[in-house]
Amino acid sequence: MQLTPKKTLKEIAAMISAEYAGDPDLVVSGINEIHRVEKGDITFVDHPKYYKKALKSAATTIIINQKMASPNGKALIFSDDPFHDFVSLVKRFKPFQEAQSMISPSAKIGKDTIIQPGSFIGNHVSIGDHCLIHSNVTIYDNCTIGNNVIIHSGAVIGADAFYFKRRPQHYDKLESCGAVVIEDHVEIGANTTIDKGVSGSTTIGSGTKLDNLIQVGHDTIIGRNCLFAAQVGIAGCVNIEDNVILWGQVGVQKDLTIGEGAVVLGQSGIAKSLEGNKTYFGSPVLEANEKMKELALMKRLPEVIKKL
Amino acid sequence: MQLTPKKTLKEIAAMISAEYAGDPDLVVSGINEIHRVEKGDITFVDHPKYYKKALKSAATTIIINQKMASPNGKALIFSDDPFHDFVSLVKRFKPFQEAQSMISPSAKIGKDTIIQPGSFIGNHVSIGDHCLIHSNVTIYDNCTIGNNVIIHSGAVIGADAFYFKRRPQHYDKLESCGAVVIEDHVEIGANTTIDKGVSGSTTIGSGTKLDNLIQVGHDTIIGRNCLFAAQVGIAGCVNIEDNVILWGQVGVQKDLTIGEGAVVLGQSGIAKSLEGNKTYFGSPVLEANEKMKELALMKRLPEVIKKL
Amino acid sequence: MQLTPKKTLKEIAAMISAEYAGDPDLVVSGINEIHRVEKGDITFVDHPKYYKKALKSAATTIIINQKMASPNGKALIFSDDPFHDFVSLVKRFKPFQEAQSMISPSAKIGKDTIIQPGSFIGNHVSIGDHCLIHSNVTIYDNCTIGNNVIIHSGAVIGADAFYFKRRPQHYDKLESCGAVVIEDHVEIGANTTIDKGVSGSTTIGSGTKLDNLIQVGHDTIIGRNCLFAAQVGIAGCVNIEDNVILWGQVGVQKDLTIGEGAVVLGQSGIAKSLEGNKTYFGSPVLEANEKMKELALMKRLPEVIKKL
Repeated sequence: MQLTPKKTLKEIAAMISAEYAGDPDLVVSGINEIHRVEKGDITFVDHPKYYKKALKSAATTIIINQKMASPNGKALIFSDDPFHDFVSLVKRFKPFQEAQSMISPSAKIGKDTIIQPGSFIGNHVSIGDHCLIHSNVTIYDNCTIGNNVIIHSGAVIGADAFYFKRRPQHYDKLESCGAVVIEDHVEIGANTTIDKGVSGSTTIGSGTKLDNLIQVGHDTIIGRNCLFAAQVGIAGCVNIEDNVILWGQVGVQKDLTIGEGAVVLGQSGIAKSLEGNKTYFGSPVLEANEKMKELALMKRLPEVIKKL
Repeated sequence: MQLTPKKTLKEIAAMISAEYAGDPDLVVSGINEIHRVEKGDITFVDHPKYYKKALKSAATTIIINQKMASPNGKALIFSDDPFHDFVSLVKRFKPFQEAQSMISPSAKIGKDTIIQPGSFIGNHVSIGDHCLIHSNVTIYDNCTIGNNVIIHSGAVIGADAFYFKRRPQHYDKLESCGAVVIEDHVEIGANTTIDKGVSGSTTIGSGTKLDNLIQVGHDTIIGRNCLFAAQVGIAGCVNIEDNVILWGQVGVQKDLTIGEGAVVLGQSGIAKSLEGNKTYFGSPVLEANEKMKELALMKRLPEVIKKL
Repeated sequence: MQLTPKKTLKEIAAMISAEYAGDPDLVVSGINEIHRVEKGDITFVDHPKYYKKALKSAATTIIINQKMASPNGKALIFSDDPFHDFVSLVKRFKPFQEAQSMISPSAKIGKDTIIQPGSFIGNHVSIGDHCLIHSNVTIYDNCTIGNNVIIHSGAVIGADAFYFKRRPQHYDKLESCGAVVIEDHVEIGANTTIDKGVSGSTTIGSGTKLDNLIQVGHDTIIGRNCLFAAQVGIAGCVNIEDNVILWGQVGVQKDLTIGEGAVVLGQSGIAKSLEGNKTYFGSPVLEANEKMKELALMKRLPEVIKKL
């Protein structure tokens, strides 16, 4: 998320009553979670395991729970609870805006786009030309829909990321400040859900077709001309390259990549990155011909045990 | 469900034109299915296999399809079709009330609670303070939502239990007279569905977070601070204790218990109760380290078969 | 889909500027995809592998991408891109009609049928008597609902078939011209989705009960008195006979048949037709007792490997 207007290090630190190391006039131009940071951004880190990653990231300002000297050209803000302070900044810069109507006056709707009755279009949503939004669809604030997009009834675009921090007595929520971007010629099935990014954009690439009842997690990026059958579930921060086909009820864990042209058969479970241009099957997934061999061998188990 | 006003045994028997054994002035104060009966309740039993359970239950009055003497302090109502007569009583005491508006005038909405446009709030629903109900949510009659609850778009709270009795030519529906109770600080994902109890309350414990497209069946009770990822499916009458984590697409069969602190990995299938504080994987589920061993052994099958 | 008024071969060929072989005054009375053609229909075929099937089908007129003599009593229309020309005819005969209100004035609603607020009823929808349509349901144009049907909130009836043709740079969509037919005494769960047929009708047989979050693909035909638990996914063009029970999260691939009275246990994956009156389990599915034996044998693998 970009900050408009931009802030200085000194101003940000004052908002959360924190000490800092670095140039007080350093400009903070955006606020983003560590997976999607750019130069000028403020982010946070709260575990020594990730200190190095955060300090070496593109982020310019880091909220951190250990005092140390600030690295070259970066600034540090010291906090006992960086997660809490980061969330409080997100809430301050992006407060929830209650809707006054089913279609926000601030939404931009392109020409020849049809929005059927009963659909909710949030604040600052942008929808391109020649789209068809069926009834009872929900599009949360700040999402962007391209041209020639079809969204079927009951789909929910831009609900909050499922991202919580365990505390001793409860879970704390990381407020999402990202959105969803749906590119041109995409079709979204009925009752499919696509969560917003926690800081960047969950993205559905041009020409991709999603069937019904699919889940796409926060910050996941899906390439062009993919085809996902019904009830596929994709966790957060996944990268799916172009021309990937996932058959029904496939599950994909977070933080991995599926290579271009991969095909994954129904009900498979994907827990690690997959190379492109291969066919996969099983839970956990194997290359399909390996899995088929394994299934054939299992049929010979009675014979094996008899022989022993 | 409580009866207001209370009825006598004699009055209830007259409603279904049935004979009875017991004190005609015995008070019937509630009507509940056998899983959730309390003292003063009327319930039903229609198979000899369950007679003993029903007669020993907390229920005070039992509709039963065999004449017998009534046990101490209890009453029996004799019926050729206890299921049918039970359902007719439920329909009489809790008839469906057609809605006149998107938000029922009888609903109680707490302070600082936001209800986005397009959401339906049924009769006698109670929603606490500081809640955020996103657009196109449906909350059926009589459900109770605590404080600081977030419900995302398309979620359906309180649809009927999926509970049918097989007849020779069709299925008969057990009318639900229960509701859903969602405690404080719960978050419910987009297009998630939580069915009402057939007599008691399907309950989501305080601090629990549900992701998108999850199914929770009737009369299931979920503890505090649980975390369920997208597309988890939980059948009816399940008890899930506190701090349980279910990853994506896990399936849970009816009438079982998952112990406190259990973690179940993605796509697992749970057909029997699980002890707490362990990690599980597989369909059917095993302890995760056992399942991992099994998967490793299966990789050695070609070698085994070659050796023989 | 029936054509009203009917057209002649000559008129149809002119609409897509194509040459043809056959009687120019031959009557074209319907337009349907090859799976559901009847006498008088026009259909298309674009791959030599399916020429024979198309030429021997009940269809009277076939759009085909190879010049040949027309078979007895049939007509051929020659096209470089039969898929494209077929779709353009469908769009011409069945253009999308934008809705003007939540309940179309052209919808027929039977007596004693309740439609709760927030539901969308499309053009030319027909709903029988004594139905209960809960809030935030969507029923697309031309669907037919019988008597005594209950549809829970968020269900989507009649969204487009998920049916695309791969082109070098994108996917082309086959426009659906079919609908959904729901027979008497059916119950449809919350957020369940049932797609329309591409040419015929996706059909839910009398007395069948569907739980929440189920997907039913285009042109699938489900028999009478079936019972499907939550999150079941059924692809397109499946035939499910009467009295079939599918437990939670079962997946069914396209173009197959499940025989009468079959029972399939939770999370099973069905990739080929199943005989009736048996119980099945596993992904891929086996008869349940075979699968149980296999699971028992797998438990003996450590012993087997030790012995070798």
